[in-house]
Amino acid sequence: MEISNRIQYLRQLMKDKNIDIYIVPSADFHQSEYVGDYFKSREFITGFTGSTGIAVITNHYAGLWTDGRYFIQAEHELANTEIKLNKIGFSGTISLDDFLLSTCPENGTIAFDGRVVSITEGIHYEDLLKLKHIQIKYDEDLINEIWKHRPALSSEPAFLLNEDITGQTRLSKINCLRDKIQSSGASAHLLSSLDDIAWLLNMRGNDVKYTPVVLAHLWITLNELHLFIDNNKLSNDVKTKLLNDGIALHSYDEIYHFLQNYDLNVTVMLDPSKVSYSLYRSLPETVENIQLPNPSTLLKSQKNEIEVQNSKNAHLKDAIAHTKFLYWLKTNYHTSTITELDAIKKLESLRSEQKHFISPSFETISAFGPHAAMCHYSSSPETNSILKEGSLYLVDSGGHYLDGSTDITRTIALGTIAPNLKTDYTNVLRGNLALSKAKFLHGCTGENLDILARQFLWNQEQDYMHGTGHGVGNLLSVHEGPCNIKWRYRGTPISLEDGMILSNEPGLYIENSHGIRLENELLVRKGVSNIYGQFMYFETLTHVPFDLDAIDETMLTTEEKTQLNAYHKKVFDLVSPHLTSDEKDWLKIYTRAL
Amino acid sequence: MEISNRIQYLRQLMKDKNIDIYIVPSADFHQSEYVGDYFKSREFITGFTGSTGIAVITNHYAGLWTDGRYFIQAEHELANTEIKLNKIGFSGTISLDDFLLSTCPENGTIAFDGRVVSITEGIHYEDLLKLKHIQIKYDEDLINEIWKHRPALSSEPAFLLNEDITGQTRLSKINCLRDKIQSSGASAHLLSSLDDIAWLLNMRGNDVKYTPVVLAHLWITLNELHLFIDNNKLSNDVKTKLLNDGIALHSYDEIYHFLQNYDLNVTVMLDPSKVSYSLYRSLPETVENIQLPNPSTLLKSQKNEIEVQNSKNAHLKDAIAHTKFLYWLKTNYHTSTITELDAIKKLESLRSEQKHFISPSFETISAFGPHAAMCHYSSSPETNSILKEGSLYLVDSGGHYLDGSTDITRTIALGTIAPNLKTDYTNVLRGNLALSKAKFLHGCTGENLDILARQFLWNQEQDYMHGTGHGVGNLLSVHEGPCNIKWRYRGTPISLEDGMILSNEPGLYIENSHGIRLENELLVRKGVSNIYGQFMYFETLTHVPFDLDAIDETMLTTEEKTQLNAYHKKVFDLVSPHLTSDEKDWLKIYTRAL
Repeated sequence: MEISNRIQYLRQLMKDKNIDIYIVPSADFHQSEYVGDYFKSREFITGFTGSTGIAVITNHYAGLWTDGRYFIQAEHELANTEIKLNKIGFSGTISLDDFLLSTCPENGTIAFDGRVVSITEGIHYEDLLKLKHIQIKYDEDLINEIWKHRPALSSEPAFLLNEDITGQTRLSKINCLRDKIQSSGASAHLLSSLDDIAWLLNMRGNDVKYTPVVLAHLWITLNELHLFIDNNKLSNDVKTKLLNDGIALHSYDEIYHFLQNYDLNVTVMLDPSKVSYSLYRSLPETVENIQLPNPSTLLKSQKNEIEVQNSKNAHLKDAIAHTKFLYWLKTNYHTSTITELDAIKKLESLRSEQKHFISPSFETISAFGPHAAMCHYSSSPETNSILKEGSLYLVDSGGHYLDGSTDITRTIALGTIAPNLKTDYTNVLRGNLALSKAKFLHGCTGENLDILARQFLWNQEQDYMHGTGHGVGNLLSVHEGPCNIKWRYRGTPISLEDGMILSNEPGLYIENSHGIRLENELLVRKGVSNIYGQFMYFETLTHVPFDLDAIDETMLTTEEKTQLNAYHKKVFDLVSPHLTSDEKDWLKIYTRAL
Repeated sequence: MEISNRIQYLRQLMKDKNIDIYIVPSADFHQSEYVGDYFKSREFITGFTGSTGIAVITNHYAGLWTDGRYFIQAEHELANTEIKLNKIGFSGTISLDDFLLSTCPENGTIAFDGRVVSITEGIHYEDLLKLKHIQIKYDEDLINEIWKHRPALSSEPAFLLNEDITGQTRLSKINCLRDKIQSSGASAHLLSSLDDIAWLLNMRGNDVKYTPVVLAHLWITLNELHLFIDNNKLSNDVKTKLLNDGIALHSYDEIYHFLQNYDLNVTVMLDPSKVSYSLYRSLPETVENIQLPNPSTLLKSQKNEIEVQNSKNAHLKDAIAHTKFLYWLKTNYHTSTITELDAIKKLESLRSEQKHFISPSFETISAFGPHAAMCHYSSSPETNSILKEGSLYLVDSGGHYLDGSTDITRTIALGTIAPNLKTDYTNVLRGNLALSKAKFLHGCTGENLDILARQFLWNQEQDYMHGTGHGVGNLLSVHEGPCNIKWRYRGTPISLEDGMILSNEPGLYIENSHGIRLENELLVRKGVSNIYGQFMYFETLTHVPFDLDAIDETMLTTEEKTQLNAYHKKVFDLVSPHLTSDEKDWLKIYTRAL
């Protein structure tokens, strides 16, 4: 069915149901960063495949609102449709709010599927639309009626992680969470975010690409725990273990009915950005709520010592695979034809040889020359470049292993590169080194530290226009809150705590020319405690060489050279025992001291 | 009258008026950082002279709550009294709130002079004490009844600044303020903070030591402006100019009555930390209020181009005086006896030779050897050390000139100093240099930048335990909000804007040994604007040499040496034309390139 037919069909349904405007967001029932195929309603109705965007359809209009990352892609994908692209943040673009207010008639009706809209968004619509007495219908999944061959909800099997992986039993985590519920003044907690549920129950699955989580909701009180999950995902063994830990099992859909009929006198803690508007509206009106960030998000981010050790194992395996990849690339690109997609395949194959490898942790970015100047470039057969001498190649990739997850970016000089490329590379590298070696007092946040990574670029009036670092989950999302390293204030700054794992990824992107990003993962550790307070420092988890061929050595201070040499010595010491003799000889030179 | 008699007298008054607890804070009617002698009630009733502390008297107890800066001083000054010292932040110390709640009987009465308590504090007391149905009497200045020879309220003459000093007429400033009042949704504004009033009216005076402000309150609506000020301060000329600008004049005390009888339907904007509880309570209950920071505080902090030029003039004069002082000190300390107090006298005398010098901008800190390890050390005849070879001498001082105000700290090596002192000095200097040369994107705050100044110390697990920088007023307070450079979050981070002037003052304090602080003033400037955004940078306003005799040159990078050499060359070029031939020869060597 063409996009135009789909929209026509949708308009017919809207007419039948007296709906003036229908909104189709990009989310799943859990406000996940990435969603399964079942949830790609907005893609279905528009053809636009980007991860972020909201479609809005009226009787005589169809529009898509998306942000700067996707303008070019959206223009391309919407080209032969009636759908108008509204560029968020672009002057002259009408905001979605203004569009809804000005287009919907007084006393009209706006509808959406409230299961894919957060509480925050839903309440925002309520406040906005009451100005014109517009009614909101939030139980209308009209796309489902049009989408004949809609993919089924994922029903991949769930599996449980043992304590040797998680370092903490689910009962112990549940008790911690109950303490937080109680101290917030609540007596129950509604948890919908998939990585929080996976962490809490020491459970993983395969319902979202690159994020080994399980579709589920969870309701926890001080003495009950109800899990809403597709029964087919659970083997008898898994079921028994969950039941033995006092977890009541319900079907995935049962949550709405369960909440509607929950008759106890409870105060519910919930995170308005992580729980759907439909769930919120399912709660009886008599139930009070306390809106707070999910406590599990902060607990999860502080890895325990067993998780830290496991993560270190995973990083060593990843370093071995990645170093073998660098050897292959640097020794072969000038004799064989290697494309961006070939490189992805090789890297994935080397990772998959490592023990307990599960999957890539996100879609690999493999970008040659000007492609690397696009921060979120995705190689396809149409764009697939051959890696050639004289330019830079950027590869941003990672793996999920049973014992942990990785995220690493390297930028590699192919042959001799121009001096300006070396200058740019070295400025980015200096930022990476400066952040890695930082010591700081406890209480510091990413906003305090960000400038260390950015200073050398800022001093040249350059910038990489993205955050310096994000939290990284263990066999969960590679973008994990609440910690991060950035300079702009959005939300409450989060203190960096012992056991947090963050990326350190300064970059530089010169349009139509080249792109550089150098990313290691850092573990936050407690250092010396003295009269000045508790000092913290970073331990670098990533052990993959930086490309000396891309460095302008004259730009480095003695201190920086010492730091880089020590890093490379450690890389060689850790990785070389796992290499072939040829690889080892190459690595010896590739990690030579400056 | 002895302290004990004063307390006895106070208790008699409390008994007569049925007051269970009487609170004596340290503030004036304007929540000023420093207060005039009239306002030293807490000092009168306790004998404690520190700038911060709250006295609390009951029928059978007298206590003082103060913070870590004053523990030693307070112990000393309270030694022969019944007053118990309560160390804020010290474990085992009862908080003032807990004391009030546990000591005051149910339905009892707590009293204070609400004119010296902010709205925030007053409302905090209300909320706290209603738990025990305790009544608050806020119109009781009992100290006034005991204090026979209380100093009069200052009635120093006020004077007006011309536009060649301020760069903006008072009418233009008043219009800006009215715009802010209107855009906040208010129709009136109550302004009590003395530096805001002085800035708004281009008026100065001499009512608070080191801060050339005038005791006054101000009520502004969209078409009226009422100034409450002692008539004796105003010459006929000043009066005429104010009246010509549409400013209605009232006596200083009239404000309470004026507010009580203000019958218009207004919404008042006021800053709850800057307006007294008594003023707040004087507003009719029907008057709505919007609590926001005073808009003038942000406007005032962004100096216009005439103010910037004037400030530069002031800084050059200050640099000439300070450089002459350094010459005198470095060439005389080993042949004559120079004490800390002698040095203060010499420095003040050199400043006073400069054109349009008005007064020191704060109490000079002149600290030799171990004295400098005390951050807020104040020399007295009892502590007055002689400056001797082999150690460091720290001098933190500044001047008010008609054209601007300065604040500078230098630490000076007397003869040859030990290598560890040089290491410490050089780490502090590197921090000062790193912050000075920072470029950063518009939107950055002091919290983003602070680590540049602190990094070299933190890397050694050391810290200076105070902010890196504060805003500086022009012929107003040397500690001026809202901008600052620090790493801990207190209040909303403030974006650094073109025209703001801040101090840059990293330090290091080693108890019983030495103290180092190196302070320059920085002017925030707009730099390049490009695809990455608007870049900002600092222009250093202070032109006084750092002491090369205290530097360990081997610790500096090539880049740092280049920066220091350029700084010293500029110092020589700007200052040397104003020196004697001997001073000039000395400065040539003292600012030699490394």
